[in-house]
Amino acid sequence: MGLVVQKYGGSSVADAEGIKRVAKRIVDAKKNGHQVVVVVSAMGDTTDELIDLAGQVSPIPAGREFDMLLTAGERISMALLAMAIKNLGHEAQSFTGSQAGVITDSVHNKARIIDVTPGRIRTALDEGNIAIVAGFQGVSQDKKDITTLGRGGSDTTAVALAAALEAEVCEIYTDVDGVFTADPRVVPKARKLDWISSGDMLELASSGSKVLLHRCVEYARRYNIPIHVRSSFSGLRGTWVSNEPQGDQVEHAIISGVAHDVSEAKVTVVGVPDKPGEAAAIFRTIADAEINIDMVVQNVSAATTALTDISFTLPKTDGAKAIDALEKAKSSIGFDSLRYDDQIGKISLVGAGMKTNPGVTASFFEALSDAGVNIELISTSEIRISVVTRADDVNEAVRAVHTAFGLDSDSDEAVVYGGTGR
Amino acid sequence: MGLVVQKYGGSSVADAEGIKRVAKRIVDAKKNGHQVVVVVSAMGDTTDELIDLAGQVSPIPAGREFDMLLTAGERISMALLAMAIKNLGHEAQSFTGSQAGVITDSVHNKARIIDVTPGRIRTALDEGNIAIVAGFQGVSQDKKDITTLGRGGSDTTAVALAAALEAEVCEIYTDVDGVFTADPRVVPKARKLDWISSGDMLELASSGSKVLLHRCVEYARRYNIPIHVRSSFSGLRGTWVSNEPQGDQVEHAIISGVAHDVSEAKVTVVGVPDKPGEAAAIFRTIADAEINIDMVVQNVSAATTALTDISFTLPKTDGAKAIDALEKAKSSIGFDSLRYDDQIGKISLVGAGMKTNPGVTASFFEALSDAGVNIELISTSEIRISVVTRADDVNEAVRAVHTAFGLDSDSDEAVVYGGTGR
Repeated sequence: MGLVVQKYGGSSVADAEGIKRVAKRIVDAKKNGHQVVVVVSAMGDTTDELIDLAGQVSPIPAGREFDMLLTAGERISMALLAMAIKNLGHEAQSFTGSQAGVITDSVHNKARIIDVTPGRIRTALDEGNIAIVAGFQGVSQDKKDITTLGRGGSDTTAVALAAALEAEVCEIYTDVDGVFTADPRVVPKARKLDWISSGDMLELASSGSKVLLHRCVEYARRYNIPIHVRSSFSGLRGTWVSNEPQGDQVEHAIISGVAHDVSEAKVTVVGVPDKPGEAAAIFRTIADAEINIDMVVQNVSAATTALTDISFTLPKTDGAKAIDALEKAKSSIGFDSLRYDDQIGKISLVGAGMKTNPGVTASFFEALSDAGVNIELISTSEIRISVVTRADDVNEAVRAVHTAFGLDSDSDEAVVYGGTGR
Repeated sequence: MGLVVQKYGGSSVADAEGIKRVAKRIVDAKKNGHQVVVVVSAMGDTTDELIDLAGQVSPIPAGREFDMLLTAGERISMALLAMAIKNLGHEAQSFTGSQAGVITDSVHNKARIIDVTPGRIRTALDEGNIAIVAGFQGVSQDKKDITTLGRGGSDTTAVALAAALEAEVCEIYTDVDGVFTADPRVVPKARKLDWISSGDMLELASSGSKVLLHRCVEYARRYNIPIHVRSSFSGLRGTWVSNEPQGDQVEHAIISGVAHDVSEAKVTVVGVPDKPGEAAAIFRTIADAEINIDMVVQNVSAATTALTDISFTLPKTDGAKAIDALEKAKSSIGFDSLRYDDQIGKISLVGAGMKTNPGVTASFFEALSDAGVNIELISTSEIRISVVTRADDVNEAVRAVHTAFGLDSDSDEAVVYGGTGR
């Protein structure tokens, strides 16, 4: 049996009982003959409470000190978890991100991992210990300051350690059973996937799926680390995410799933002179404001006019910043007006199968029109089609598409390809 | 202006308001032209809460993990304090014990400082920062594990840093105004001392005074660091503790103060054969049980018998362990019985002046007898006299002695020596 990295989120270790339950699960993996490295997040709401405290002493807490503060959360959970494991009669040692060799850049609050040197972890394992590592944190290469990896950072810590330690698998324990064909809260008939390719998972993550963050999947794909997303409560098989199919998973559904996202807004720049360089000027302005945009569409300009409209979507949280930046550049760019719309939603169909199945796009649009959903913007990648609609239409649209592609749990029509001739 | 080390205890930084108040005081010191290094404890009850959490997951938490857990407390307070200072427009950086170069041995939960290498602190100061350091914690020299210094450890951290950085003074901010001639809760007329010698302070600390711990004063005396004990609430001058008198303090009271201690118990070994090696056997047994004893008295044995009694005092918390150890060794040592008495109290008179004033001992005993207090044990050092009495008599005895030596705040009789002939 090889080395396994397990990651437990804050909800799994919210209190002493949760910590003891997780400790038992970890010990079971050890008993099964694995070397076990555990990455743990802060207990329940600890991080939010620390953020609140920071707000009480300073309106805009400094990055370096903010990271120093937040990392106390994992320090508490990892030490308690190690104690709980030792209490079950097994050896365990906890390590901070710094002690575990998680080296990052110096961008506080959202640092990137640039190297992992897990010498102390390796030693602890060789001495028969279970190694408990603080998620979400590292130490900066140049200044040796404590850094944090930003939202979902613990998942990235787990995958990065799995890669550096050449683990068999990185198990991400969470409060859901795995990756579903759609958000079960919107689509009651959504199906849990036994396996999904890293590529499809990346598209789902960037299309609104919350189970795994894009960064973490990207890291796992680059280092070819299989991720097993599963529930820390049930112990059932969850969803495997990997570059190659796992075990019996020899056939791929054409479509992996339907994702939706209502966190974006649409900006339309009206009356842009239809000549070279205009779009560049607009998106340079947006980029300089450090805003990431998602979809972009330029309307075909009517022959009778030399003006066109350019629309793009971006996170609602960046909306004000974008409008502000564009207004400031209005004269230099030269456009008539701006329109801002935060009542939009995005529905994305994801699946490597669509590469080889030309019918998919047509079926997708048919399903939407049958549901009476009007399409405002369209963008596609090799394995994804996304459309923007009214926010109010999103849930209905997701259900319609989910059914149309035979993804419903009570459907026998799931279209597959590359099968072993079942 | 030179470098100042300030230490703030948990009660001074119990909440956001306290942290902001302390931040302002620190900034004032900086404005006065000092380089400022601040040692801070965990907020209010944080440490107790963490200890409670540990108890919920493990009856006897492992030392290494327990230290990892507890040190999260200072990590929180120091980061918040640094934020609060920056919010006042001054540069501040927080450092863990490890980052501050506090190197200790590997005895978890009560590690000893063996070296201090404050390179990062020095750099931070040179760059114009106020340096905030986590008290109570360090890193072990051999294993590079996080350690804690035990009770009162933050004071020791402050003094150790002051020594390593050659600070002008180590200011210990607390919730009392300084060192008093007696515990004000027992003696309302107790007087705050403007100055006390390190030697006298050491005796007071080991005689029951709680203001400063023995190990912190000892460290300060060895490296000749003046300590200024003062209130974090009033800002008034407190008590200077140093090897040599401070400024105008050219005359010493014969007596620095009266300390009392009701935390000890008395063990009497009855019917010990009055021959060489017996006492040795008894105290070897106690020592092997890792119990520190305080006073020891052997009764003069009556000529008619070959038996004697040996009494000693020890912390009540070690009472059961001592009795158990002695009972186990009863046959090998050879004694009749054991008597255990936890209703005793100790009163100590401390002052370098008694070296040159033979009358002190007599006056002490007269004061006690006038107060009708019976003496059970006596022990003396060059600058201290201690007696054991009934616990019920302690407060009365302390007040009587305090008055007898003219220490009461409304007295003009404070006997002095070495004066400048004022």
